[in-house]
Amino acid sequence: MSEKKLVREITSRDEDFAKWYTDIVLKADLVGYSGVKGCMVIRPYGYAIWENIQRILDGIFKDTGHENVYMPMFIPESLLNKEKDHIEGFAPEVAWVTHGGSELLAERMCIRPTSEVLFCEHYKNIISSYRDLPKLYNQWCSVVRWEKTTRPFLRSREFLWQEGHTAHADADDAVRETEQMLNVYADFCANSLNMPVLKGKKTESDKFAGAVATYCIEALMHDGKALQAGTSHYFGDKFAKVFDITYTNKENKLEFIHQASWGVTTRLIGAVIMSHGDDSGLVLPPAVAPVQVVIIPVAQHKPGVLEKAAELAERLKVAGLRVKLDDSDNSAGWKFSEYEMKGVPLRLEIGPKDIEQNQCVIVRRDTREKAFVGLDNLETEVSELLSALAKGIYQKSLENIQNRTYSCKNTDEINAAFAEKGDGFVKAMWCGDEKCEDEVKERTGAGSRCIPFEQEKISDVCVCCGKPAECMVIWGKAY
Amino acid sequence: MSEKKLVREITSRDEDFAKWYTDIVLKADLVGYSGVKGCMVIRPYGYAIWENIQRILDGIFKDTGHENVYMPMFIPESLLNKEKDHIEGFAPEVAWVTHGGSELLAERMCIRPTSEVLFCEHYKNIISSYRDLPKLYNQWCSVVRWEKTTRPFLRSREFLWQEGHTAHADADDAVRETEQMLNVYADFCANSLNMPVLKGKKTESDKFAGAVATYCIEALMHDGKALQAGTSHYFGDKFAKVFDITYTNKENKLEFIHQASWGVTTRLIGAVIMSHGDDSGLVLPPAVAPVQVVIIPVAQHKPGVLEKAAELAERLKVAGLRVKLDDSDNSAGWKFSEYEMKGVPLRLEIGPKDIEQNQCVIVRRDTREKAFVGLDNLETEVSELLSALAKGIYQKSLENIQNRTYSCKNTDEINAAFAEKGDGFVKAMWCGDEKCEDEVKERTGAGSRCIPFEQEKISDVCVCCGKPAECMVIWGKAY
Repeated sequence: MSEKKLVREITSRDEDFAKWYTDIVLKADLVGYSGVKGCMVIRPYGYAIWENIQRILDGIFKDTGHENVYMPMFIPESLLNKEKDHIEGFAPEVAWVTHGGSELLAERMCIRPTSEVLFCEHYKNIISSYRDLPKLYNQWCSVVRWEKTTRPFLRSREFLWQEGHTAHADADDAVRETEQMLNVYADFCANSLNMPVLKGKKTESDKFAGAVATYCIEALMHDGKALQAGTSHYFGDKFAKVFDITYTNKENKLEFIHQASWGVTTRLIGAVIMSHGDDSGLVLPPAVAPVQVVIIPVAQHKPGVLEKAAELAERLKVAGLRVKLDDSDNSAGWKFSEYEMKGVPLRLEIGPKDIEQNQCVIVRRDTREKAFVGLDNLETEVSELLSALAKGIYQKSLENIQNRTYSCKNTDEINAAFAEKGDGFVKAMWCGDEKCEDEVKERTGAGSRCIPFEQEKISDVCVCCGKPAECMVIWGKAY
Repeated sequence: MSEKKLVREITSRDEDFAKWYTDIVLKADLVGYSGVKGCMVIRPYGYAIWENIQRILDGIFKDTGHENVYMPMFIPESLLNKEKDHIEGFAPEVAWVTHGGSELLAERMCIRPTSEVLFCEHYKNIISSYRDLPKLYNQWCSVVRWEKTTRPFLRSREFLWQEGHTAHADADDAVRETEQMLNVYADFCANSLNMPVLKGKKTESDKFAGAVATYCIEALMHDGKALQAGTSHYFGDKFAKVFDITYTNKENKLEFIHQASWGVTTRLIGAVIMSHGDDSGLVLPPAVAPVQVVIIPVAQHKPGVLEKAAELAERLKVAGLRVKLDDSDNSAGWKFSEYEMKGVPLRLEIGPKDIEQNQCVIVRRDTREKAFVGLDNLETEVSELLSALAKGIYQKSLENIQNRTYSCKNTDEINAAFAEKGDGFVKAMWCGDEKCEDEVKERTGAGSRCIPFEQEKISDVCVCCGKPAECMVIWGKAY
């Protein structure tokens, strides 16, 4: 790493959140720009976060009985066209392949924006009896959606994700799957990303193209904007009827299968940045941090310092932690700001005086609290500090939601809350009419995020039209 | 699994090897056909083999200092066009994207057939000083090559692979990388796929498009055909000069970087099938088998049998093995042939009499040897049997190479050897002239596979023209 990188000042988070975000993704070496607009290079440090996310989620998927597969990246136009709502939703934003080598293709193909139709085609081939069900498949891959406006991790033309696609004998089982995976996502966000989320159902207008019902988890970023962090969809037998996917039940009668799908993307990395980051850079949740502890030798030219630092690094590695020892000749000041920028949860400093006293200094990235830690119980102390940090940043995010959730009875109250306290989640009642949904967005800038599972009664009437309310909706300005 | 699958007869391997191969990939549930010609669905059992390959290789890549990244899947035409040899090699077989949604793109883009130019563009952005070198990057992804003739795993229009792309300060370092990764591949093939390979250099005409030198590992399939199982390329500063990728050395002078790349693909799964499989189906190397031991309870309705089977499954899982207990109501005969088809290395049978005698029966997939194994040391015995199987199938493959490697002095001898003993590797001298290379292929059907690192002197003169020989070449008919 060359010293030219010493200057790493970034825009203040409260001054210009968007600029702060871009500064971080570039200066923490998460992404690089590529020659294709809207496509990013995910650099090693960013990709290592994704690998940790993958590893944890993949373990949970397998523990809940799911199997990984790989479908082709191409969807022939006629296949994409089969389900009317699905094609309407995706046709405007797919990339089309028209030529193979110098030959014009007989039928053009799009690059998968999502793989429902490919899984349907496959399920039709492999499902025939109730014994073949359920099929609990998942795929890790990249997908392409030709978006107009793009931002690294949040919205890019190509992004990495996982897409679960499952086939079930009956509706109940498919609904259970949809709910189960939404809970998996919510728990993962809480436990591994230390990011609390709301769970709910999307309104009709906001459903996934072709779904009977779409469920989502919604997170609130530091600036009060809402971010959809994951979704699961219930399809009923809609696709099954279009693709004629049937099975023989125990009574030897033909039935349509019922389906679900669910996905999270590299957008989760964007969520982590905007939930926990600060003016010095990233703050990474220990569960997904590529480096959990960075060890920085102080006065490393003094005898015994480097050896001791290496010994501690080895001990922590043996304890199962991800550790980096930086014994480069960069200054301590450079190192401190480098690993703050990169959001390494704990910085461990060790110098001659510490060695004399059989201790080291550990600094938490989130609070910057400094602790003198005895070397005898280093492993335990470090893992306790990591847990404390995880809890701390979760708590801070939770408080952000609590401080920025406003109960409002009409759109004037929404505007007043935003003006006074900044953007956030709005709890307000809704009559169920799409016109009101649009009207609220027009008047306040806040769209419906979800109909949360945890309902409250803010008032009896719709926040917009004053007619009797059907349910409480969470509204917010979106990424 | 429905009983309709009971009939699983496959074509005999020695009768029609190509048909036998297709039968296996379908009947062992490795792949399914998709609606896009030349693109396959990799089903859970096939994908699980790939996941094991990935996990092992990724660990080795990381241990040797490599980092994973993700590059965009798109290459703008102008970027692909930059390096003359590279574009000539790949232009005829790339898929072109011309439209994003309904908009015609200003410049068409291909889907990566390989990512050299993307890495070059990125390296140009991030490398400026000798402190930035080496960059040891790898990527796991899918690539697209619009082939005319396709076969599952061996040659498909989209396939999964890893591509390492590295940047070095000088030629020596880049060459060392090229050699190191070839050795990594060869060792992996030997140790994890139990498949011996030859290491060597490709001839000029067979080099990767744009490379200074291409190295490869060559395996010999059961039918005597050669299969290229992995490659590594040395680029020198060829791409660096075209893309102007320089760094400042310690003397503060500008230098071009030197590059290497290396890759293996899902073709390795094809290699495993064709190396070890037999007339009953797959035979999987224990290191990559999704299931290493299948436990089949005998007379499972008798009291205590299922409990004992479950207990043994649990013990083997705790010992770190991949175990499946099949307690379905399918017949024992069905189960036996099912797991033979799927190539599960060991079948463990346990019934009432075995339990009485505190033993079980273990059958090796490769030799079908039956052993009575005491339950007290089950874990040790099982892992010894797995090692023995791994050694056994390696040895068998090695003997296949030894029995099918012919030293020939002229093309008549090659044809005679093929006619008498079947296809195989031919060791024969070469003058270095491309015309002779072509001529040998025309006369015998065997192309140059590589100039092996382990050279011998079969004669003094070229196998084709009789002029003085430059080196020994391994020739063979190729997949």
